[in-house]
Amino acid sequence: MAPPAAVSFETSPSQYKHWSLRIDGHVATLAMDVREDAGLSSEYRLKLNSYDLGVDIELADAVLRLRFEHPEVHSVVVTSLKERVFCAGANIMMLRGSAHGWKVNFCKFTNETRLAIEDASRHSGLKFLAALNGICAGGGYELALACDEIFLVDDGNSAVSLPEAPLLGVLPGTGGLTRLVDKRFVRRDIADFFSTLVEGIKGKRAVAWRLVDAVHPTSQFSAAVRKRATELAMESDRPASGPGIILSRLHPTITESAITYSAVSLTVNRERRTGELIVSAPTDPQPTTPDGMLEAGDRFWALRAFRELDDALLRLRINEPEIGTIVVRTEGDRDRVLSVDRALIEHQNHWLVREVIHFMKRTLKRLDLTSRTFFALIEPGSAFAGSLFEIALAADRSYMLDDSDRENAIQLSGMNGGLLPMSNGLSRLQVRFLAEPARPAELLQHQGPFGAHQAEEAGLVTFVPDDIDWDDEVRLAIEARAAFSPDVLTGLEANLRFAGPETIETKIFGRLTAWQNWIFQRPNAVGDKGALNVYGQQGRPEFDWKRT
Amino acid sequence: MAPPAAVSFETSPSQYKHWSLRIDGHVATLAMDVREDAGLSSEYRLKLNSYDLGVDIELADAVLRLRFEHPEVHSVVVTSLKERVFCAGANIMMLRGSAHGWKVNFCKFTNETRLAIEDASRHSGLKFLAALNGICAGGGYELALACDEIFLVDDGNSAVSLPEAPLLGVLPGTGGLTRLVDKRFVRRDIADFFSTLVEGIKGKRAVAWRLVDAVHPTSQFSAAVRKRATELAMESDRPASGPGIILSRLHPTITESAITYSAVSLTVNRERRTGELIVSAPTDPQPTTPDGMLEAGDRFWALRAFRELDDALLRLRINEPEIGTIVVRTEGDRDRVLSVDRALIEHQNHWLVREVIHFMKRTLKRLDLTSRTFFALIEPGSAFAGSLFEIALAADRSYMLDDSDRENAIQLSGMNGGLLPMSNGLSRLQVRFLAEPARPAELLQHQGPFGAHQAEEAGLVTFVPDDIDWDDEVRLAIEARAAFSPDVLTGLEANLRFAGPETIETKIFGRLTAWQNWIFQRPNAVGDKGALNVYGQQGRPEFDWKRT
Repeated sequence: MAPPAAVSFETSPSQYKHWSLRIDGHVATLAMDVREDAGLSSEYRLKLNSYDLGVDIELADAVLRLRFEHPEVHSVVVTSLKERVFCAGANIMMLRGSAHGWKVNFCKFTNETRLAIEDASRHSGLKFLAALNGICAGGGYELALACDEIFLVDDGNSAVSLPEAPLLGVLPGTGGLTRLVDKRFVRRDIADFFSTLVEGIKGKRAVAWRLVDAVHPTSQFSAAVRKRATELAMESDRPASGPGIILSRLHPTITESAITYSAVSLTVNRERRTGELIVSAPTDPQPTTPDGMLEAGDRFWALRAFRELDDALLRLRINEPEIGTIVVRTEGDRDRVLSVDRALIEHQNHWLVREVIHFMKRTLKRLDLTSRTFFALIEPGSAFAGSLFEIALAADRSYMLDDSDRENAIQLSGMNGGLLPMSNGLSRLQVRFLAEPARPAELLQHQGPFGAHQAEEAGLVTFVPDDIDWDDEVRLAIEARAAFSPDVLTGLEANLRFAGPETIETKIFGRLTAWQNWIFQRPNAVGDKGALNVYGQQGRPEFDWKRT
Repeated sequence: MAPPAAVSFETSPSQYKHWSLRIDGHVATLAMDVREDAGLSSEYRLKLNSYDLGVDIELADAVLRLRFEHPEVHSVVVTSLKERVFCAGANIMMLRGSAHGWKVNFCKFTNETRLAIEDASRHSGLKFLAALNGICAGGGYELALACDEIFLVDDGNSAVSLPEAPLLGVLPGTGGLTRLVDKRFVRRDIADFFSTLVEGIKGKRAVAWRLVDAVHPTSQFSAAVRKRATELAMESDRPASGPGIILSRLHPTITESAITYSAVSLTVNRERRTGELIVSAPTDPQPTTPDGMLEAGDRFWALRAFRELDDALLRLRINEPEIGTIVVRTEGDRDRVLSVDRALIEHQNHWLVREVIHFMKRTLKRLDLTSRTFFALIEPGSAFAGSLFEIALAADRSYMLDDSDRENAIQLSGMNGGLLPMSNGLSRLQVRFLAEPARPAELLQHQGPFGAHQAEEAGLVTFVPDDIDWDDEVRLAIEARAAFSPDVLTGLEANLRFAGPETIETKIFGRLTAWQNWIFQRPNAVGDKGALNVYGQQGRPEFDWKRT
């Protein structure tokens, strides 16, 4: 089964096929109502509110728009419009028919969407209540686990379950296992039992086992949900009223080899399997006050450039699997970036500025989690300053030209000091200097730019070839990288990028996802007689019984 | 290539084929001198001090014996007797010819051995100095990374390197990537460059990049090593002199379906793919003082039973891959276990007691890391108390018979309070009760045994079926478990067992190993044209270029 040639990650509520977004005062209701016949591929039907990537793109869009477009929304009820069904999880026929890389990228995106829900709760005062008005299985329950609280209808039938292991021979890989034991602190032996149980757990036992927060009889369910959603809304520090800003379409220009936005472009060279990602500094003055930013809306460079970067990364992941080595450049006026950074820092407590900063943060996390090599090339005319220098810090290596004639410099800003943390909770400077914990603060004290040698001495860049060596050294590094086994690079980068502490978030992408990807590769799951392949068909799976 | 039918993990210095252990005052020298023709299989030759499981079994034995048999040894120099070669890493022909499960178990054991080196340094005052007197590649450098310090000879040729990614398309999976960035705090971009470099790094650059601690010219190398080893020895808190205790052979009785030791037995049912592991409490009074324990030596129950358990787990992993579900029972006198626990706690600062406790701890970690399901069955006559109850806590589930006639009880001791931590640094009670951090201390206050209902209420056991339900419930649970995909259980258990914080140790077995296992399954490494398969042969690897 071939995925669609090119997936777009852009949508908007008026285009939603699978979700209904309703806003009533401070409470929004995001209700799943998946159209069976509107999957990304026609080779499966999205029965029982099961989902594919297209469904999740809408969910991610809805969560994002609530943050930017509806600051007056303080809590969100996540529920279903189907009778007796909340969500049956990821569509099994879709998974079965997907190539390995598609499975992995599908899971990565859905994980990022669920983490975005938690990010909104933790950092934007937008609380989520999962209102499970029917059966809630697998990925459906994993979506609920990403919400702050889970209410389950007590109708004698509706249960929460993670039937992936017994039915499909794969893990609940959208954070389910991790959130059970690390977020909801379900006891590991209970989690073990629960995760091997096809029929799931319902009623009071689900509460006692910490699987849900409350159960309510059908007759009282909506009232209880409404009441709790209203209470959650009252905890919020979001504005009492709007308006927010509208996120309009990005309208990139797409050709065979390039996708070009206003401040971002991604050009691919299919023969060399390389890409070039360029991010431009603002070309005109940017607002410096919240009012100015509200007025600029999604034209505000910080939001616009990072939305474009985010979209480019998503398209790269899904639509360009063979482009393995990405050169990252920036261009334009460093001072304009620094000026934006100053405004963001000064007004970081304003709701919109907060949203912009967290969006930049999530985009950079997306970069950390993109399994492609990134080499930052820092040349005269570049704009690797502050929030844009964060891209160089996120890259696997950086090469900075030690130019004998022209100025070539990088610069830090307060944005490098912790406002754009990695998923392990540390700033990229902190992770970079685990050996010298005091160094980030020292470097942030540095006034003005760093030339190539200063930057090298400060440990801020990897290599500083001079004019004579530059072309060869950079070219050879890229060619060598592009010749590696793509798989070993994925493993290498997933290990080296995440030094330091682990969090629920990093455990999901490290421990849980890495095991799931292993399982996704094993004949016991995906072979002819593997569990994922024979589910719902005649016959039972046949396993190689050897434990690994 | 078939591995030997059954591997024994027992050896002793007089039997070593690959290592020389020399003791000179407070400094031991453990020198690698691998016999090319003495691999576990005759289908490869262990050239250039490359190693297979047999070589590592000797290393693990040597480290263990230094702890128990030579308390007067305070530091260990790890070096090579070969000219210009320290160690070329894991043998590639061995890896290439091994089945997936063998690769994984080989890596697991070698990882445990390296962690045992760090455990000895951290907890037993036994410091390790890697004296790299020649080229040091791949697993050789990973062994060095496990030592406290690394000295490299500066002879213009000797370098440290991790060439796995470029040459073999697999990760340096014996902790290398993790220790680079998380132990030695090598900057991630430098680690990235280094880990893609076949020729490695030597001389002053290796020091500047934190890859080694010092380089010394050939003429001064041995003197510098001796001097530093002596200094490290002086930091130790181990006894000034011996004697230690001798670890004699375990002499289990081995039949087709059982391996029986003095206090441990493991019986397998190949048809059902289940096993039964029984650990017995002491059957006679045990020493309560360090002098008594010294005199008892390896007959002291705590050491003997856990050595046997350790050996049984290792044999289970390597020799019985299809035995996926293990029922764990204990039997005997609970009070005798508790009495041993009291003695251990009272004298925990004595060097031998310390060694015994840390050995118990490592054995229990080995259990946590054994990818088999463990169900603890707690029945009348069992001895799940204190350190033996820790096995029930390590199990995936526990079933405790609520017996209407006979006493059936479990009991805690101070040994459950943190002396036997998991690899994440927490006690199993702490991990169990992440939701209620105060609970472990409360439970440890409880005097006397817990009956079935008390134990259930306390959250110490999973299920407490009564006499009527017991047989069916337990039987069905085991049958259901044994019918699962072995792979999904491995992934499930690896996620659910390790709730809470992550450490270098858990990152090695979670993040690093999980990715490596994925790579070990990928055609780009192990396919006909995969990098691991074509290395050293005519032709180059052919890759599927899709990034995942």
